[in-house]
Amino acid sequence: MSETIQSEANARFKRWKKLVDNARHIKKEGVTLAEGAHLAQTILERGIVPEAMIVRAAGLNAEASELFDKFSAKRVPYFVLDSRLYDVLSPVEHGCGLMLEVKVPSATLPQALPVDVLYLDGVQDPGNIGTMIRTAVAAGVKHIAGSAACANFWSPKALRAGMGAHFAATLYENVPANLLSEAFAAKRFAADARGGQDLYRDTQWHITPCVWMMGSEGQGLGEVALSVADARYYIPITEGCESLNVGAAAAVCLFEQRRRRLTATC
Amino acid sequence: MSETIQSEANARFKRWKKLVDNARHIKKEGVTLAEGAHLAQTILERGIVPEAMIVRAAGLNAEASELFDKFSAKRVPYFVLDSRLYDVLSPVEHGCGLMLEVKVPSATLPQALPVDVLYLDGVQDPGNIGTMIRTAVAAGVKHIAGSAACANFWSPKALRAGMGAHFAATLYENVPANLLSEAFAAKRFAADARGGQDLYRDTQWHITPCVWMMGSEGQGLGEVALSVADARYYIPITEGCESLNVGAAAAVCLFEQRRRRLTATC
Repeated sequence: MSETIQSEANARFKRWKKLVDNARHIKKEGVTLAEGAHLAQTILERGIVPEAMIVRAAGLNAEASELFDKFSAKRVPYFVLDSRLYDVLSPVEHGCGLMLEVKVPSATLPQALPVDVLYLDGVQDPGNIGTMIRTAVAAGVKHIAGSAACANFWSPKALRAGMGAHFAATLYENVPANLLSEAFAAKRFAADARGGQDLYRDTQWHITPCVWMMGSEGQGLGEVALSVADARYYIPITEGCESLNVGAAAAVCLFEQRRRRLTATC
Repeated sequence: MSETIQSEANARFKRWKKLVDNARHIKKEGVTLAEGAHLAQTILERGIVPEAMIVRAAGLNAEASELFDKFSAKRVPYFVLDSRLYDVLSPVEHGCGLMLEVKVPSATLPQALPVDVLYLDGVQDPGNIGTMIRTAVAAGVKHIAGSAACANFWSPKALRAGMGAHFAATLYENVPANLLSEAFAAKRFAADARGGQDLYRDTQWHITPCVWMMGSEGQGLGEVALSVADARYYIPITEGCESLNVGAAAAVCLFEQRRRRLTATC
């Protein structure tokens, strides 16, 4: 039986708190925290062995409890954490009571890999990042890269919003846009609300692998990303309406790509 | 010169705080709070006269300051709020320092109106709600309805995520799914990850006005919504991936509709 960690001064708690508060620690330590039964289930199914389980003192729901047993059978150590302290770490208000410390897989940039890619340029919101990773994987785009100005892909919030998609994808962080052409044998398309061609009118862009480049909410794509783009496309939204949320824009572009690929082969 | 509101016990502050904390007060009072220069600009452009301006004591940025002057010219009263108190009300961490108290427009359900509609069934997250209102308006869908189980469409967080789209749309709250057929002369389509037809393979669904019904993140569409659907469609996502975020799913369905409408008329 593990003792309950009660104090904010506890060394383990302090270390976990650092991972939540500052993504630099995720990078430095190479680990992150994954909250929720859905993420735990994905981690289990992929055969990933967590470093540790963090259990909320108030208890686990039935689903989380079953997952706890399965990880215990794999000799994953666990730590019971005072509920108030657990809630400080958790990215959601009413979690399932089970959080996993997991290693962050490291990926090195490939050479001329002919695959579809989603490239995020300076996207700051961890929820948006996680949602876009989820959307990309659902659309069959399993390589996601981001510029150094993006928020960390592996923060507990981004991981939570990704709903397990992180573990089905290959993620590259700190990638300057000018390295994309060497890394991926794919055309680079700028999703740009300010101009370019109509996404739907150009009927040929999907015939090669595509790197879709999405900019930050406020600024859009940066200069480097725009300069390396083979083409710019805009989503034809109604007049009097400025732009889409970046997550919605990514869904529109990546699923238009998926639609074209699916209907072309059937 | 207005005095700075410094105390949490101030009656105005307490009233605003109630609007933020509990959406019932938004409904009861018929007002909400809109933070940010972008929302203020939209409100100005639409000729809406706010009830009051709330100004962060630390000051306004240049853009917000200009908006402040324009609303002042319309004799909108203003209140300076201690920065700490302002931040308690603000839905974002680093706001522009200008928040508007605005009336919530009320809409009554029409009779057999032949328009496209987005229907939200039990969507809880205010950010998702606001983003979907923004997406719908961008896709040309300007009527958005929601079940009683949805979070309030007009909460400061939903309003902020909507980026002004609320004021370009007609919003109906507390609408049971079984009233949709009377209100709108449109086919009702259930977006359902669990089954139905492939969204892309059925090439005829867009020829009449459409009510797209989207369910909550956890549960999907409720029984009533499913029972009134003329058809169910799923988005063909890759295998091994469960579902999309509801906001991404709405973007995919509504922009597939837009694509079909645009390419059919050109």
